[in-house]
Amino acid sequence: MADPFAFRLLATDGGARLGEATTPHGVIRTPAFMPVGTLGAMKGVHWHEVRESGADVVLANTYHLMLRPTAERIAALGGLHAFTGWPHPILTDSGGFQVMSLSELRKVSEDAVTFRSHIDGASVSLSPERAVEIQAMLGADISMQLDECIRLPAERADIERAMRLSLRWAQRSQRAFTGRPGRALFGIVQGGDVTELRIESARALADMGFDGLAIGGLAVGEPQAVMLAMIEAVMPYLPADKPHYLMGVGTPDDLLEAVGRGIDMFDCVLPTRNGRHGTAFTRFGPINIRNARHAADPRPLDAQSRCPAARDYSRAYLHHLSRSNELLGAMLLSLVNLYYYQDLMADMRAAIGARRFAQFRAQTKAAWAAGDLPAMT
Amino acid sequence: MADPFAFRLLATDGGARLGEATTPHGVIRTPAFMPVGTLGAMKGVHWHEVRESGADVVLANTYHLMLRPTAERIAALGGLHAFTGWPHPILTDSGGFQVMSLSELRKVSEDAVTFRSHIDGASVSLSPERAVEIQAMLGADISMQLDECIRLPAERADIERAMRLSLRWAQRSQRAFTGRPGRALFGIVQGGDVTELRIESARALADMGFDGLAIGGLAVGEPQAVMLAMIEAVMPYLPADKPHYLMGVGTPDDLLEAVGRGIDMFDCVLPTRNGRHGTAFTRFGPINIRNARHAADPRPLDAQSRCPAARDYSRAYLHHLSRSNELLGAMLLSLVNLYYYQDLMADMRAAIGARRFAQFRAQTKAAWAAGDLPAMT
Repeated sequence: MADPFAFRLLATDGGARLGEATTPHGVIRTPAFMPVGTLGAMKGVHWHEVRESGADVVLANTYHLMLRPTAERIAALGGLHAFTGWPHPILTDSGGFQVMSLSELRKVSEDAVTFRSHIDGASVSLSPERAVEIQAMLGADISMQLDECIRLPAERADIERAMRLSLRWAQRSQRAFTGRPGRALFGIVQGGDVTELRIESARALADMGFDGLAIGGLAVGEPQAVMLAMIEAVMPYLPADKPHYLMGVGTPDDLLEAVGRGIDMFDCVLPTRNGRHGTAFTRFGPINIRNARHAADPRPLDAQSRCPAARDYSRAYLHHLSRSNELLGAMLLSLVNLYYYQDLMADMRAAIGARRFAQFRAQTKAAWAAGDLPAMT
Repeated sequence: MADPFAFRLLATDGGARLGEATTPHGVIRTPAFMPVGTLGAMKGVHWHEVRESGADVVLANTYHLMLRPTAERIAALGGLHAFTGWPHPILTDSGGFQVMSLSELRKVSEDAVTFRSHIDGASVSLSPERAVEIQAMLGADISMQLDECIRLPAERADIERAMRLSLRWAQRSQRAFTGRPGRALFGIVQGGDVTELRIESARALADMGFDGLAIGGLAVGEPQAVMLAMIEAVMPYLPADKPHYLMGVGTPDDLLEAVGRGIDMFDCVLPTRNGRHGTAFTRFGPINIRNARHAADPRPLDAQSRCPAARDYSRAYLHHLSRSNELLGAMLLSLVNLYYYQDLMADMRAAIGARRFAQFRAQTKAAWAAGDLPAMT
């Protein structure tokens, strides 16, 4: 019934790639940034605003949703698309990363990871098969294999063990992923900051025939240079005809650099989280609206922005709202940031199509480096 | 340049009145409910949504804004209308009520009230003249006199002293309110729960020629019957050709009862505050969406509502968001409530115009009493 998941590469420019992925709920233009709606909601942003910002696809978190309201509940209500009212593509992660970062008493065995819920302390088990099952109940257009994430820095032996386990879990995830026509399953490259392990992981996953390949376990505290080196190391081994997804990344600069190295998809909480804390991402670079220099500034954040919140309110108003912890401040700055991220992706796509990505990257970085508007005198 | 403030009575039905007030920023259809944007923002609601809900006018708080970002700052930025981007009528209170409820070390003298800011502990003085000045700097369409509010229950002597002081401050407020063509100043009836004092206050204020008369110092903990008795006691003394504003009220039932007794204007934080805490006001009465009965309910709050949030999301989704303390839950329920309040006012206006207010009131209460939809089986 549904068209099969498909990825088409439309153009390349150096390492950068322009493409589109087709899912049962619509097309994802790549490079794509996926805003994160952890609990089935974007914090501080209405769903129609997420769409208006230019997002083709959003990410929802298996770990959070399996605990509350549970995958079974969401399935009974028709899946995440019906539950949230977002009718466009949804990617769900597998829960592996949040098990590492949020849960207590985590215990990893060959079979599954067992942990205590951060909500009620209940003991929960998540196996590769269960992670696939949950994502099917959620109705994800793109599911992710369960992997074992570890924090960096870590011992090489630990990194290697987790990478190998993640490969075995990749195979089990694939075997479990049946009866979902048109839906995609992505494998996840692990291997920490060890080049050979990353390459081993990428080669093994490439042979398994996943619909897409993700790079996981980065942006967990290592310098950007390490992250970029890992991307460069694995890229030759990732199938060119499949989308490449860099998980949990990142800053606007990370996006520019990673797209230049062949990444097609990203997700990150930064636009909304930093918006809630007073940072606006703009073409002038990040702006801390809580800074006193904005307190009396009648100018908008960016008069040329496509985003109403960046255009229609003074910096002084946004400053006041953010400093006063008014919900509207979080709402407006989150919106500013979602628009900025989507516009950055759209501009990158246009630049790749026009074979001027390197120029666009340089210009964008120069504009960030030039910084914000001069203060009012 | 601006048309003068004007109030026209269009129809009456028993005690209920249909009218409209004209201000420099537009017409206020009465009976009117004013959502409260304390700090120059409606908590959890975009300004365009406030308008779409049907609000003609909003209230902003002098006490909060004078402390942060200060009236001088807002004046320099063009006033509250320009600062917030809300181009429609704005009423500002005088700060008297918040000085009572929020500040510490309050000291009332004949000249002014002095208090410590709840933000930084600074000592602040607010006189009747200063309250008028601040409201002028904010650019209010309707300003309120400074009054002394006291908590109930209170000794009669205290109530009397505060009421008399408020009358003297009314005169000083009026003398200070000059050079603001088209703008209105309202006096505030005080007198606690003592009928004779309320009447004395109303008679004195009626003689002063204010543009409108408010009833203050109610809904501060007394039973609804006491509030309604005070309204009934003073109503004969309030000029019929001026708007009557019941401050800080109230529940939907309060609105129905007060309109039936001749009140034209209301303000209250209930729609947004209770929305943030999981209560939806509906034609079925208030619904606590956090109650377990909604957890798996695929039905919307009210399929017939004009509000998208009440129509387009399941109770299960709203339950999940509110229980998870997701910002979107607060946003959607606040919107549901703002729409419900405005629709209730619009329905009351229509009923008064059609001379069927008593019937409408009875039907509305019967629907509330019938309660929510039966639980899903």
